[in-house]
Amino acid sequence: MRNLKVMMAFRGTHYHGFQRQPNAVTVQETVETALSKLLNESVTIQGCSRTDTGVHARQFCFSMQTGNPIPARNFIRGACGYLPEDISILSVEDVPPEFHARFSCKAKQYMYRIHNSESKNPFTTDLELHYRRRLDVSLIREAASHFLGTHDFAAFCTGASKQKNTVRTIYDIRIEQQEHSVVIFIKGNGFLYNMVRILVGTLLSVNEGRIALDELDLLLRSRDRLRAGITAQPHGLSLYRLFYEDIECPEQIHL
Amino acid sequence: MRNLKVMMAFRGTHYHGFQRQPNAVTVQETVETALSKLLNESVTIQGCSRTDTGVHARQFCFSMQTGNPIPARNFIRGACGYLPEDISILSVEDVPPEFHARFSCKAKQYMYRIHNSESKNPFTTDLELHYRRRLDVSLIREAASHFLGTHDFAAFCTGASKQKNTVRTIYDIRIEQQEHSVVIFIKGNGFLYNMVRILVGTLLSVNEGRIALDELDLLLRSRDRLRAGITAQPHGLSLYRLFYEDIECPEQIHL
Repeated sequence: MRNLKVMMAFRGTHYHGFQRQPNAVTVQETVETALSKLLNESVTIQGCSRTDTGVHARQFCFSMQTGNPIPARNFIRGACGYLPEDISILSVEDVPPEFHARFSCKAKQYMYRIHNSESKNPFTTDLELHYRRRLDVSLIREAASHFLGTHDFAAFCTGASKQKNTVRTIYDIRIEQQEHSVVIFIKGNGFLYNMVRILVGTLLSVNEGRIALDELDLLLRSRDRLRAGITAQPHGLSLYRLFYEDIECPEQIHL
Repeated sequence: MRNLKVMMAFRGTHYHGFQRQPNAVTVQETVETALSKLLNESVTIQGCSRTDTGVHARQFCFSMQTGNPIPARNFIRGACGYLPEDISILSVEDVPPEFHARFSCKAKQYMYRIHNSESKNPFTTDLELHYRRRLDVSLIREAASHFLGTHDFAAFCTGASKQKNTVRTIYDIRIEQQEHSVVIFIKGNGFLYNMVRILVGTLLSVNEGRIALDELDLLLRSRDRLRAGITAQPHGLSLYRLFYEDIECPEQIHL
Protein backbone atom coordinates (compact mmCIF):
# COMPACT_ATOMS: atom_id res chain seq x y z
CA MET A 1 0.00 0.00 0.00
CA ARG A 2 1.36 3.47 -0.89
CA ASN A 3 0.92 6.38 1.53
CA LEU A 4 0.56 9.61 -0.46
CA LYS A 5 0.99 13.21 0.60
CA VAL A 6 -1.14 15.33 -1.73
CA MET A 7 -1.10 19.14 -1.84
CA MET A 8 -4.12 20.96 -3.24
CA ALA A 9 -5.75 24.38 -3.37
CA PHE A 10 -9.45 25.13 -3.33
CA ARG A 11 -11.78 28.08 -3.55
CA GLY A 12 -14.20 27.49 -0.68
CA THR A 13 -17.05 29.70 -1.91
CA HIS A 14 -19.35 26.87 -2.98
CA TYR A 15 -18.49 24.33 -0.27
CA HIS A 16 -19.66 23.71 3.27
CA GLY A 17 -16.05 23.51 4.37
CA PHE A 18 -13.56 20.70 3.92
CA GLN A 19 -14.91 18.07 6.29
CA ARG A 20 -17.38 15.51 4.94
CA GLN A 21 -20.88 15.91 6.38
CA PRO A 22 -24.35 14.56 5.57
CA ASN A 23 -26.59 16.63 3.28
CA ALA A 24 -24.02 19.26 2.30
CA VAL A 25 -21.45 19.51 -0.49
CA THR A 26 -17.93 19.52 0.98
CA VAL A 27 -14.43 19.56 -0.45
CA GLN A 28 -13.58 16.19 1.09
CA GLU A 29 -16.55 14.44 -0.47
CA THR A 30 -15.89 16.08 -3.86
CA VAL A 31 -12.23 15.04 -3.84
CA GLU A 32 -12.94 11.51 -2.63
CA THR A 33 -15.54 11.03 -5.38
CA ALA A 34 -13.15 12.32 -8.07
CA LEU A 35 -10.20 10.21 -6.88
CA SER A 36 -12.33 7.10 -6.52
CA LYS A 37 -13.19 7.44 -10.22
CA LEU A 38 -9.59 8.18 -11.22
CA LEU A 39 -8.08 5.27 -9.24
CA ASN A 40 -11.03 2.94 -9.70
CA GLU A 41 -11.15 2.13 -6.00
CA SER A 42 -12.81 3.58 -2.92
CA VAL A 43 -10.68 6.47 -1.64
CA THR A 44 -10.74 8.06 1.83
CA ILE A 45 -8.56 11.08 2.48
CA GLN A 46 -7.22 12.53 5.76
CA GLY A 47 -7.20 16.34 5.66
CA CYS A 48 -4.73 18.57 7.50
CA SER A 49 -7.52 20.66 8.97
CA ARG A 50 -11.22 21.38 9.08
CA THR A 51 -12.27 24.58 7.33
CA ASP A 52 -15.43 26.68 7.65
CA THR A 53 -17.97 27.23 4.88
CA GLY A 54 -16.63 29.79 2.40
CA VAL A 55 -13.02 29.61 3.64
CA HIS A 56 -10.36 28.97 0.98
CA ALA A 57 -7.06 27.10 0.89
CA ARG A 58 -4.07 28.31 -1.13
CA GLN A 59 -2.32 25.23 0.21
CA PHE A 60 -4.03 22.24 1.80
CA CYS A 61 -2.60 18.81 2.46
CA PHE A 62 -4.28 15.45 2.63
CA SER A 63 -2.85 11.99 3.04
CA MET A 64 -4.34 8.86 1.49
CA GLN A 65 -3.55 5.23 0.90
CA THR A 66 -3.76 3.48 -2.44
CA GLY A 67 -2.54 0.31 -4.12
CA ASN A 68 -2.61 2.04 -7.53
CA PRO A 69 0.88 2.58 -9.01
CA ILE A 70 -0.17 5.74 -10.91
CA PRO A 71 2.73 8.23 -11.37
CA ALA A 72 2.39 11.69 -9.80
CA ARG A 73 2.07 13.53 -13.12
CA ASN A 74 -0.78 11.30 -14.30
CA PHE A 75 -2.46 11.65 -10.89
CA ILE A 76 -2.41 15.46 -11.19
CA ARG A 77 -3.51 15.55 -14.81
CA GLY A 78 -6.16 12.86 -14.31
CA ALA A 79 -7.61 14.41 -11.15
CA CYS A 80 -7.91 17.69 -13.04
CA GLY A 81 -10.33 15.98 -15.41
CA TYR A 82 -12.56 14.71 -12.60
CA LEU A 83 -12.42 17.70 -10.25
CA PRO A 84 -14.43 20.91 -10.65
CA GLU A 85 -12.58 24.15 -11.51
CA ASP A 86 -12.47 25.34 -7.90
CA ILE A 87 -10.31 22.46 -6.63
CA SER A 88 -6.80 21.83 -7.94
CA ILE A 89 -4.19 19.18 -7.12
CA LEU A 90 -0.73 20.77 -6.90
CA SER A 91 1.58 17.86 -6.11
CA VAL A 92 1.63 14.20 -5.12
CA GLU A 93 4.45 12.33 -3.41
CA ASP A 94 5.03 8.97 -1.75
CA VAL A 95 5.75 9.33 1.96
CA PRO A 96 6.54 6.92 4.82
CA PRO A 97 3.52 5.10 6.30
CA GLU A 98 3.65 7.14 9.53
CA PHE A 99 2.95 10.42 7.71
CA HIS A 100 -0.54 11.81 8.44
CA ALA A 101 -1.68 15.14 6.98
CA ARG A 102 -3.16 16.30 10.29
CA PHE A 103 -1.01 14.73 12.99
CA SER A 104 2.32 15.33 11.22
CA CYS A 105 1.56 19.03 10.71
CA LYS A 106 3.77 21.19 12.95
CA ALA A 107 2.37 24.63 12.16
CA LYS A 108 -0.08 26.44 9.92
CA GLN A 109 -0.24 29.93 8.49
CA TYR A 110 -3.53 31.61 7.63
CA MET A 111 -4.07 34.67 5.44
CA TYR A 112 -6.97 37.10 5.92
CA ARG A 113 -7.51 39.58 3.06
CA ILE A 114 -9.37 42.88 3.47
CA HIS A 115 -10.21 45.13 0.51
CA ASN A 116 -10.02 48.53 2.19
CA SER A 117 -11.66 51.06 -0.10
CA GLU A 118 -14.90 52.92 -0.68
CA SER A 119 -15.30 50.98 -3.96
CA LYS A 120 -15.77 47.25 -4.27
CA ASN A 121 -13.18 45.10 -6.03
CA PRO A 122 -15.11 43.04 -8.62
CA PHE A 123 -12.20 40.59 -8.93
CA THR A 124 -12.11 39.55 -5.27
CA THR A 125 -15.78 39.58 -4.27
CA ASP A 126 -15.55 36.16 -2.64
CA LEU A 127 -11.85 36.38 -1.68
CA GLU A 128 -11.59 39.57 0.40
CA LEU A 129 -13.67 41.24 3.09
CA HIS A 130 -14.85 44.61 1.76
CA TYR A 131 -14.20 47.12 4.57
CA ARG A 132 -14.88 50.77 3.78
CA ARG A 133 -13.60 52.51 6.93
CA ARG A 134 -9.90 53.37 6.73
CA LEU A 135 -7.75 50.71 8.40
CA ASP A 136 -5.02 52.15 10.62
CA VAL A 137 -2.35 49.56 9.84
CA SER A 138 0.11 50.66 12.54
CA LEU A 139 -2.65 50.55 15.16
CA ILE A 140 -3.77 47.03 14.27
CA ARG A 141 -0.13 45.90 14.03
CA GLU A 142 0.36 47.06 17.59
CA ALA A 143 -2.88 45.34 18.65
CA ALA A 144 -1.82 42.11 16.94
CA SER A 145 1.46 42.02 18.85
CA HIS A 146 -0.55 41.30 22.04
CA PHE A 147 -1.59 37.92 20.61
CA LEU A 148 1.95 36.68 19.95
CA GLY A 149 3.24 33.81 22.06
CA THR A 150 1.50 31.13 24.10
CA HIS A 151 -1.89 32.05 25.55
CA ASP A 152 -5.19 30.53 26.54
CA PHE A 153 -7.28 31.67 23.54
CA ALA A 154 -10.69 30.66 25.00
CA ALA A 155 -11.97 34.23 24.41
CA PHE A 156 -11.16 33.73 20.71
CA CYS A 157 -13.01 30.47 20.18
CA THR A 158 -16.57 29.51 19.36
CA GLY A 159 -17.75 26.85 21.83
CA ALA A 160 -14.60 26.95 23.99
CA SER A 161 -16.34 25.10 26.84
CA LYS A 162 -16.39 21.97 24.66
CA GLN A 163 -12.60 22.13 24.17
CA LYS A 164 -10.25 20.29 26.49
CA ASN A 165 -7.32 22.58 25.85
CA THR A 166 -7.62 26.14 24.57
CA VAL A 167 -3.93 27.03 24.87
CA ARG A 168 -2.23 27.72 21.56
CA THR A 169 1.00 29.40 20.42
CA ILE A 170 1.06 32.13 17.78
CA TYR A 171 4.54 32.38 16.26
CA ASP A 172 4.09 35.30 13.94
CA ILE A 173 1.57 37.90 12.77
CA ARG A 174 2.44 39.99 9.72
CA ILE A 175 0.20 42.73 8.36
CA GLU A 176 0.91 44.01 4.84
CA GLN A 177 -0.57 46.89 2.89
CA GLN A 178 -0.86 45.82 -0.76
CA GLU A 179 -2.41 48.47 -3.04
CA HIS A 180 -6.02 48.71 -1.81
CA SER A 181 -5.79 45.57 0.33
CA VAL A 182 -4.62 44.91 3.86
CA VAL A 183 -3.45 41.34 4.28
CA ILE A 184 -3.01 39.67 7.68
CA PHE A 185 -0.83 36.55 7.98
CA ILE A 186 -1.06 34.53 11.21
CA LYS A 187 1.17 31.53 11.90
CA GLY A 188 0.69 29.24 14.87
CA ASN A 189 1.03 25.68 16.11
CA GLY A 190 -2.73 25.17 15.98
CA PHE A 191 -5.96 27.12 15.89
CA LEU A 192 -9.25 26.82 17.77
CA TYR A 193 -12.65 26.87 16.07
CA ASN A 194 -13.11 30.32 14.41
CA MET A 195 -9.96 31.58 16.16
CA VAL A 196 -8.43 33.45 13.20
CA ARG A 197 -11.76 35.02 12.26
CA ILE A 198 -12.33 36.22 15.86
CA LEU A 199 -8.76 37.58 16.07
CA VAL A 200 -9.40 39.54 12.85
CA GLY A 201 -12.81 40.74 14.13
CA THR A 202 -11.07 41.96 17.28
CA LEU A 203 -8.46 43.86 15.23
CA LEU A 204 -11.35 45.56 13.39
CA SER A 205 -12.94 46.46 16.77
CA VAL A 206 -9.63 48.06 17.78
CA ASN A 207 -9.57 49.96 14.48
CA GLU A 208 -13.08 51.25 15.20
CA GLY A 209 -12.17 52.34 18.74
CA ARG A 210 -14.53 49.84 20.37
CA ILE A 211 -11.68 47.95 22.04
CA ALA A 212 -8.64 49.85 23.39
CA LEU A 213 -5.07 48.56 23.09
CA ASP A 214 -4.69 48.38 26.87
CA GLU A 215 -7.78 46.14 27.18
CA LEU A 216 -6.30 43.38 25.04
CA ASP A 217 -4.22 41.55 27.66
CA LEU A 218 -7.18 41.59 30.04
CA LEU A 219 -9.41 40.34 27.24
CA LEU A 220 -7.09 37.37 26.66
CA ARG A 221 -6.98 36.56 30.38
CA SER A 222 -10.77 36.86 30.74
CA ARG A 223 -11.35 33.76 28.54
CA ASP A 224 -14.68 35.49 27.76
CA ARG A 225 -15.80 35.21 24.12
CA LEU A 226 -18.24 38.10 24.59
CA ARG A 227 -15.43 40.58 25.23
CA ALA A 228 -13.66 39.87 21.92
CA GLY A 229 -14.73 41.24 18.52
CA ILE A 230 -17.14 39.63 16.09
CA THR A 231 -16.26 36.58 14.01
CA ALA A 232 -15.06 38.19 10.76
CA GLN A 233 -16.75 36.87 7.60
CA PRO A 234 -15.29 33.63 6.24
CA HIS A 235 -14.60 34.64 2.63
CA GLY A 236 -11.54 36.77 3.49
CA LEU A 237 -9.82 33.76 5.06
CA SER A 238 -7.48 31.24 3.44
CA LEU A 239 -5.34 28.49 4.83
CA TYR A 240 -2.08 29.78 3.37
CA ARG A 241 0.89 27.62 4.22
CA LEU A 242 1.58 24.36 6.06
CA PHE A 243 4.72 23.33 7.88
CA TYR A 244 5.73 19.68 8.14
CA GLU A 245 8.96 18.78 9.91
CA ASP A 246 9.69 22.51 10.12
CA ILE A 247 9.92 22.71 6.35
CA GLU A 248 7.62 24.96 4.35
CA CYS A 249 5.67 23.17 1.66
CA PRO A 250 6.67 24.84 -1.61
CA GLU A 251 3.48 24.08 -3.53
CA GLN A 252 1.04 26.90 -3.20
CA ILE A 253 -1.40 28.82 -5.30
CA HIS A 254 -1.28 32.58 -5.23
CA LEU A 255 -4.13 34.93 -5.88
CA MET B 1 -25.23 70.32 -17.52
CA ARG B 2 -22.27 68.61 -15.82
CA ASN B 3 -19.84 66.50 -17.86
CA LEU B 4 -18.52 63.66 -15.69
CA LYS B 5 -15.45 61.47 -16.07
CA VAL B 6 -16.17 58.20 -14.29
CA MET B 7 -13.61 55.45 -13.68
CA MET B 8 -14.83 51.91 -13.10
CA ALA B 9 -13.64 48.30 -13.04
CA PHE B 10 -15.57 45.26 -14.16
CA ARG B 11 -15.20 41.52 -14.32
CA GLY B 12 -16.30 40.69 -17.86
CA THR B 13 -17.08 36.99 -17.32
CA HIS B 14 -20.85 37.35 -17.40
CA TYR B 15 -21.14 40.13 -20.02
CA HIS B 16 -21.21 40.24 -23.79
CA GLY B 17 -18.60 42.97 -23.70
CA PHE B 18 -18.99 46.63 -22.85
CA GLN B 19 -20.92 47.92 -25.85
CA ARG B 20 -24.73 47.95 -25.70
CA GLN B 21 -26.35 45.47 -28.11
CA PRO B 22 -29.79 43.99 -28.62
CA ASN B 23 -30.62 40.66 -26.92
CA ALA B 24 -27.44 40.37 -24.83
CA VAL B 25 -26.45 41.60 -21.38
CA THR B 26 -23.64 44.15 -21.63
CA VAL B 27 -21.74 46.30 -19.17
CA GLN B 28 -22.96 49.52 -20.79
CA GLU B 29 -26.62 48.57 -20.47
CA THR B 30 -26.15 47.41 -16.87
CA VAL B 31 -24.40 50.64 -15.87
CA GLU B 32 -26.90 52.86 -17.68
CA THR B 33 -29.81 51.10 -15.99
CA ALA B 34 -28.21 51.44 -12.53
CA LEU B 35 -27.28 55.11 -12.98
CA SER B 36 -30.71 55.98 -14.41
CA LYS B 37 -32.20 54.67 -11.15
CA LEU B 38 -29.64 56.44 -8.98
CA LEU B 39 -29.96 59.81 -10.74
CA ASN B 40 -33.66 59.45 -11.54
CA GLU B 41 -33.10 60.47 -15.17
CA SER B 42 -32.26 58.69 -18.41
CA VAL B 43 -28.47 58.18 -18.54
CA THR B 44 -26.34 57.43 -21.62
CA ILE B 45 -22.63 56.79 -21.15
CA GLN B 46 -19.72 57.08 -23.61
CA GLY B 47 -17.16 54.32 -23.03
CA CYS B 48 -13.42 54.60 -23.69
CA SER B 49 -13.40 51.39 -25.69
CA ARG B 50 -15.36 48.38 -26.86
CA THR B 51 -14.42 45.13 -25.15
CA ASP B 52 -15.02 41.51 -26.17
CA THR B 53 -17.21 39.03 -24.32
CA GLY B 54 -15.38 37.77 -21.23
CA VAL B 55 -12.71 40.49 -21.27
CA HIS B 56 -12.21 42.43 -18.01
CA ALA B 57 -11.32 46.00 -17.11
CA ARG B 58 -9.13 46.87 -14.12
CA GLN B 59 -9.64 50.45 -15.21
CA PHE B 60 -12.29 51.68 -17.63
CA CYS B 61 -13.46 55.24 -18.25
CA PHE B 62 -16.80 56.54 -19.37
CA SER B 63 -18.06 60.08 -19.77
CA MET B 64 -21.66 61.14 -19.18
CA GLN B 65 -23.78 64.23 -18.83
CA THR B 66 -26.16 64.94 -15.97
CA GLY B 67 -28.03 67.84 -14.42
CA ASN B 68 -27.98 66.10 -11.03
CA PRO B 69 -25.76 67.88 -8.46
CA ILE B 70 -24.94 64.61 -6.58
CA PRO B 71 -21.47 64.72 -4.91
CA ALA B 72 -18.85 62.17 -6.06
CA ARG B 73 -18.88 60.20 -2.80
CA ASN B 74 -22.65 59.74 -2.89
CA PHE B 75 -22.47 58.78 -6.57
CA ILE B 76 -19.94 56.02 -5.79
CA ARG B 77 -21.77 54.75 -2.71
CA GLY B 78 -25.18 54.98 -4.38
CA ALA B 79 -24.10 53.28 -7.61
CA CYS B 80 -22.66 50.44 -5.51
CA GLY B 81 -26.18 49.75 -4.27
CA TYR B 82 -27.65 49.52 -7.79
CA LEU B 83 -24.78 47.74 -9.56
CA PRO B 84 -24.06 44.00 -9.41
CA GLU B 85 -20.92 42.80 -7.61
CA ASP B 86 -18.89 42.47 -10.82
CA ILE B 87 -19.00 46.19 -11.68
CA SER B 88 -17.51 48.85 -9.42
CA ILE B 89 -17.32 52.64 -9.71
CA LEU B 90 -13.86 53.85 -8.61
CA SER B 91 -14.05 57.63 -9.00
CA VAL B 92 -16.18 60.45 -10.38
CA GLU B 93 -15.03 63.93 -11.32
CA ASP B 94 -16.38 66.98 -13.13
CA VAL B 95 -14.48 67.67 -16.35
CA PRO B 96 -14.67 70.34 -19.09
CA PRO B 97 -17.44 69.81 -21.69
CA GLU B 98 -14.96 68.84 -24.42
CA PHE B 99 -13.78 65.73 -22.50
CA HIS B 100 -14.93 62.47 -24.11
CA ALA B 101 -13.90 59.09 -22.66
CA ARG B 102 -13.06 57.68 -26.10
CA PHE B 103 -11.80 60.61 -28.16
CA SER B 104 -9.76 62.20 -25.35
CA CYS B 105 -7.92 58.94 -24.64
CA LYS B 106 -4.27 59.15 -25.77
CA ALA B 107 -3.13 55.61 -25.02
CA LYS B 108 -4.24 52.36 -23.46
CA GLN B 109 -2.46 49.54 -21.72
CA TYR B 110 -3.78 45.99 -21.74
CA MET B 111 -2.75 43.11 -19.47
CA TYR B 112 -2.89 39.46 -20.52
CA ARG B 113 -2.48 36.92 -17.69
CA ILE B 114 -1.35 33.32 -18.22
CA HIS B 115 -1.33 30.74 -15.43
CA ASN B 116 1.63 28.63 -16.50
CA SER B 117 1.54 25.39 -14.55
CA GLU B 118 0.46 21.77 -14.79
CA SER B 119 -2.16 22.49 -12.08
CA LYS B 120 -5.11 24.83 -12.42
CA ASN B 121 -5.40 27.92 -10.23
CA PRO B 122 -8.89 27.77 -8.68
CA PHE B 123 -8.71 31.48 -7.78
CA THR B 124 -8.20 32.76 -11.33
CA THR B 125 -10.29 30.38 -13.42
CA ASP B 126 -11.95 33.22 -15.32
CA LEU B 127 -9.03 35.69 -15.03
CA GLU B 128 -6.05 33.83 -16.49
CA LEU B 129 -5.44 31.56 -19.45
CA HIS B 130 -4.36 28.14 -18.14
CA TYR B 131 -1.34 27.13 -20.24
CA ARG B 132 0.45 23.90 -19.25
CA ARG B 133 3.45 23.92 -21.58
CA ARG B 134 6.43 25.79 -20.11
CA LEU B 135 6.59 29.38 -21.33
CA ASP B 136 10.09 30.48 -22.35
CA VAL B 137 9.87 34.06 -21.11
CA SER B 138 13.11 35.27 -22.71
CA LEU B 139 12.02 33.83 -26.05
CA ILE B 140 8.61 35.51 -26.05
CA ARG B 141 10.20 38.76 -24.80
CA GLU B 142 12.43 38.71 -27.85
CA ALA B 143 9.47 37.89 -30.10
CA ALA B 144 7.43 40.74 -28.58
CA SER B 145 10.17 43.27 -29.34
CA HIS B 146 9.36 42.84 -33.06
CA PHE B 147 5.93 44.40 -32.49
CA LEU B 148 7.25 47.61 -30.90
CA GLY B 149 6.82 50.83 -32.85
CA THR B 150 4.51 51.86 -35.68
CA HIS B 151 3.34 49.08 -37.99
CA ASP B 152 0.43 48.07 -40.16
CA PHE B 153 -1.14 45.45 -37.87
CA ALA B 154 -3.62 44.06 -40.45
CA ALA B 155 -2.25 40.54 -39.84
CA PHE B 156 -3.23 40.96 -36.17
CA CYS B 157 -6.82 42.03 -36.68
CA THR B 158 -10.10 40.19 -37.17
CA GLY B 159 -11.88 41.64 -40.21
CA ALA B 160 -9.04 43.97 -41.24
CA SER B 161 -10.56 44.51 -44.68
CA LYS B 162 -13.41 46.47 -43.07
CA GLN B 163 -10.94 48.83 -41.38
CA LYS B 164 -9.87 52.05 -43.07
CA ASN B 165 -6.59 52.29 -41.23
CA THR B 166 -4.80 49.36 -39.66
CA VAL B 167 -1.64 51.25 -38.65
CA ARG B 168 -1.08 51.48 -34.91
CA THR B 169 1.82 52.29 -32.59
CA ILE B 170 2.87 50.02 -29.75
CA TYR B 171 4.86 51.99 -27.18
CA ASP B 172 5.79 49.27 -24.76
CA ILE B 173 5.51 45.52 -24.13
CA ARG B 174 6.53 44.23 -20.71
CA ILE B 175 6.47 40.54 -19.79
CA GLU B 176 6.68 39.65 -16.09
CA GLN B 177 7.03 36.32 -14.37
CA GLN B 178 4.94 36.42 -11.17
CA GLU B 179 4.98 33.15 -9.18
CA HIS B 180 3.14 30.69 -11.45
CA SER B 181 1.86 33.40 -13.79
CA VAL B 182 3.30 35.13 -16.82
CA VAL B 183 1.79 38.57 -17.31
CA ILE B 184 2.03 40.51 -20.57
CA PHE B 185 1.47 44.28 -20.57
CA ILE B 186 0.98 46.00 -23.94
CA LYS B 187 0.66 49.76 -24.27
CA GLY B 188 -0.27 51.49 -27.52
CA ASN B 189 -2.06 54.46 -29.04
CA GLY B 190 -4.93 52.27 -30.16
CA PHE B 191 -5.79 48.65 -30.85
CA LEU B 192 -7.58 46.89 -33.70
CA TYR B 193 -10.34 44.33 -33.19
CA ASN B 194 -8.85 41.29 -31.32
CA MET B 195 -5.34 42.73 -31.80
CA VAL B 196 -4.02 42.05 -28.29
CA ARG B 197 -5.46 38.55 -28.26
CA ILE B 198 -3.87 37.75 -31.68
CA LEU B 199 -0.52 39.21 -30.55
CA VAL B 200 -0.64 36.94 -27.48
CA GLY B 201 -1.70 33.94 -29.60
CA THR B 202 1.30 34.63 -31.85
CA LEU B 203 3.67 34.74 -28.87
CA LEU B 204 2.31 31.33 -27.83
CA SER B 205 2.94 30.03 -31.38
CA VAL B 206 6.55 31.24 -31.08
CA ASN B 207 6.81 29.47 -27.70
CA GLU B 208 5.59 26.26 -29.34
CA GLY B 209 8.06 26.54 -32.24
CA ARG B 210 5.31 26.97 -34.82
CA ILE B 211 6.47 30.49 -35.74
CA ALA B 212 10.19 31.35 -35.78
CA LEU B 213 11.60 34.65 -34.53
CA ASP B 214 12.93 35.52 -37.98
CA GLU B 215 9.47 35.11 -39.55
CA LEU B 216 7.90 37.83 -37.42
CA ASP B 217 8.89 40.89 -39.47
CA LEU B 218 7.71 39.17 -42.64
CA LEU B 219 4.49 38.20 -40.88
CA LEU B 220 3.83 41.85 -39.98
CA ARG B 221 4.53 43.00 -43.55
CA SER B 222 2.35 40.25 -45.04
CA ARG B 223 -0.84 41.83 -43.59
CA ASP B 224 -2.14 38.23 -43.67
CA ARG B 225 -4.22 37.21 -40.66
CA LEU B 226 -3.75 33.52 -41.50
CA ARG B 227 0.00 33.72 -40.88
CA ALA B 228 -0.36 35.00 -37.30
CA GLY B 229 -1.23 32.85 -34.27
CA ILE B 230 -4.70 32.06 -32.96
CA THR B 231 -6.83 34.59 -31.13
CA ALA B 232 -5.97 33.82 -27.49
CA GLN B 233 -8.99 33.22 -25.23
CA PRO B 234 -10.65 36.38 -23.92
CA HIS B 235 -10.66 35.65 -20.18
CA GLY B 236 -6.91 36.29 -19.73
CA LEU B 237 -7.31 39.85 -21.05
CA SER B 238 -7.99 43.04 -19.11
CA LEU B 239 -7.99 46.66 -20.09
CA TYR B 240 -5.41 47.73 -17.51
CA ARG B 241 -4.62 51.41 -17.65
CA LEU B 242 -5.79 54.49 -19.58
CA PHE B 243 -3.83 57.58 -20.45
CA TYR B 244 -5.53 60.95 -20.84
CA GLU B 245 -3.42 64.02 -21.57
CA ASP B 246 -0.34 61.85 -21.07
CA ILE B 247 -1.26 61.36 -17.42
CA GLU B 248 -1.90 57.93 -15.98
CA CYS B 249 -5.26 57.56 -14.31
CA PRO B 250 -4.52 56.59 -10.71
CA GLU B 251 -7.76 54.75 -10.00
CA GLN B 252 -7.35 51.09 -10.72
CA ILE B 253 -8.36 47.77 -9.28
CA HIS B 254 -5.71 45.12 -8.80
CA LEU B 255 -6.24 41.43 -8.79
